[in-house]
Amino acid sequence: MKIAASAHYVPSKKVTNDDLSQLMDTSDEWISSRTGIQQRHVSCGENTADLCAKVAKKLLQKSGTAAEKIDLIIVATMSPDCYTPATAAIVQGKIQAVNAAAFDVSAACSGFIYALTTAKAMMKLPHYQHVLVIGGEVLSKVLDWTDRTTAVLFGDGAAGVLLETTTSDSSFLSEDLKTYGNLADRLQAGLTEPLSKFPANSSHHFAAFKMNGRDVYTFATHKVPLSIETAVTESGLKLEQVDWFILHQANSRIITQIAKRMKQPLEKFPMNIAEYGNTSGASVPLLFDEMIEAGKIKTGQIIVLSGFGGGLTVGTQIIKY
Amino acid sequence: MKIAASAHYVPSKKVTNDDLSQLMDTSDEWISSRTGIQQRHVSCGENTADLCAKVAKKLLQKSGTAAEKIDLIIVATMSPDCYTPATAAIVQGKIQAVNAAAFDVSAACSGFIYALTTAKAMMKLPHYQHVLVIGGEVLSKVLDWTDRTTAVLFGDGAAGVLLETTTSDSSFLSEDLKTYGNLADRLQAGLTEPLSKFPANSSHHFAAFKMNGRDVYTFATHKVPLSIETAVTESGLKLEQVDWFILHQANSRIITQIAKRMKQPLEKFPMNIAEYGNTSGASVPLLFDEMIEAGKIKTGQIIVLSGFGGGLTVGTQIIKY
Repeated sequence: MKIAASAHYVPSKKVTNDDLSQLMDTSDEWISSRTGIQQRHVSCGENTADLCAKVAKKLLQKSGTAAEKIDLIIVATMSPDCYTPATAAIVQGKIQAVNAAAFDVSAACSGFIYALTTAKAMMKLPHYQHVLVIGGEVLSKVLDWTDRTTAVLFGDGAAGVLLETTTSDSSFLSEDLKTYGNLADRLQAGLTEPLSKFPANSSHHFAAFKMNGRDVYTFATHKVPLSIETAVTESGLKLEQVDWFILHQANSRIITQIAKRMKQPLEKFPMNIAEYGNTSGASVPLLFDEMIEAGKIKTGQIIVLSGFGGGLTVGTQIIKY
Repeated sequence: MKIAASAHYVPSKKVTNDDLSQLMDTSDEWISSRTGIQQRHVSCGENTADLCAKVAKKLLQKSGTAAEKIDLIIVATMSPDCYTPATAAIVQGKIQAVNAAAFDVSAACSGFIYALTTAKAMMKLPHYQHVLVIGGEVLSKVLDWTDRTTAVLFGDGAAGVLLETTTSDSSFLSEDLKTYGNLADRLQAGLTEPLSKFPANSSHHFAAFKMNGRDVYTFATHKVPLSIETAVTESGLKLEQVDWFILHQANSRIITQIAKRMKQPLEKFPMNIAEYGNTSGASVPLLFDEMIEAGKIKTGQIIVLSGFGGGLTVGTQIIKY
């Protein structure tokens, strides 16, 4: 299998750190020095499936593929439009990919890598030869905009790839997926509590983001290098042979520390967090597509894609582009 | 691959149709004659991951498998505990399956079949030999208990299987997954709308169930037979060779109509909807496990597992037990 096209879409509305400092007790200096974030895009009126459908249309257009040729659509999201239908099903309807099965994968900021691995596996079954894998989030709708510890971190966007089966060597060399459910409570969003008794007075309690930043930092800076080294070793390559490390854009400090820990030059770790903030499931394919559009990722290069976050989860794919 | 064990768990609290008639303008006669439902189990205090973890523990116990041997946990749900962590990640932590990757699949009432197909595919990758696939729902927490058109239909529960790779012939013969995203709005739950502007006054709008019952009935009675016939044909078998049709328990009238349309005896379509209502992602494995526990499903029999619902989606797996 190979990547036939990549694409991204972000809502046009930009919200700067200065804009946020009007809403809550924070500052551009505080946010940018601690996270690397200068602004984020915020969706007004478009939901996650809208963003993902725009990416899907771009993928079809870029690759010259008819919508009816798509066999499967997987959307990685932690901010779906609904509990049902799945975001991927809405996308399928919007782009009229009438022959595609569609479902969502939930693994938060690792979601795109988990979905990519799922797609890689599904493409070993008979029916799946043209597969859209899209990470998309509208986190703005589930954020608590009065909580300065979390609201400043996230942004909206979507990005993805069209995968095709191929008779030549696969572009997908190896993967590593790890979950640390013992740390599940360190990063939580959108908790819906069960009824405490029946009949209940109110049926729906919904909680926004909750994060133990220190624990997530420790987790990411230790477990991401481990996952990357595991997957690179399995591919038969060495870290030195990797051209680009496309990491989830959660925090520039985390990425800097991961590079240091892996003894790899920071130049191999591109970042776009300054513009987009943390877009969770969208961040890895968003950076990947920007690097391709900029001509920086070239045919034949070895690329590490690695996501990490809620679950807690880590996921790494090694590809030869 | 084969099914090494199956298990189910439902919360102890039972709510009868008569109980509901105290809360809203409905009656036992109205509900049971139109749906086949007599009662449902409602979770008080336990969330989806709690139910699924109980199923996971039973699966380990029944099969004599150590938690550390599990490589992957997939939970199919449309009522996850949270947007993140995934329900499967919480289950992984609860049962201490420290070597398992974990993620959720969202495809509503077809979710278990989509997850089973995902598991079948993932088991073709090198790392996944012992896989838990669990469908679990706590729909009671997202229902509008003042809406008699939807509140009477659903119930809580969880059920699943432990899959293992095997050197003998696979138990999984063929599958069919279809999505009809053009009908996405016919069955909707848990819509979270995007912000209309930024900054917004309130950030979170959440809508409970909305269903066009007539359209869903027409969809199910036409597309489920089609999916089953497609998958059975692909397995090289004939409908007459199928011993049991284990269908999603949405409505006894739908199942009766599907049997009629397929010209198969209704005796081959077991039902437990009277006791549990529609448990969405849990319903197919819940009925499957009950049929095994009752000694009705026997080794060597041909079983159709078929789910249908939100998306709209259909999914069918043909197995030789």
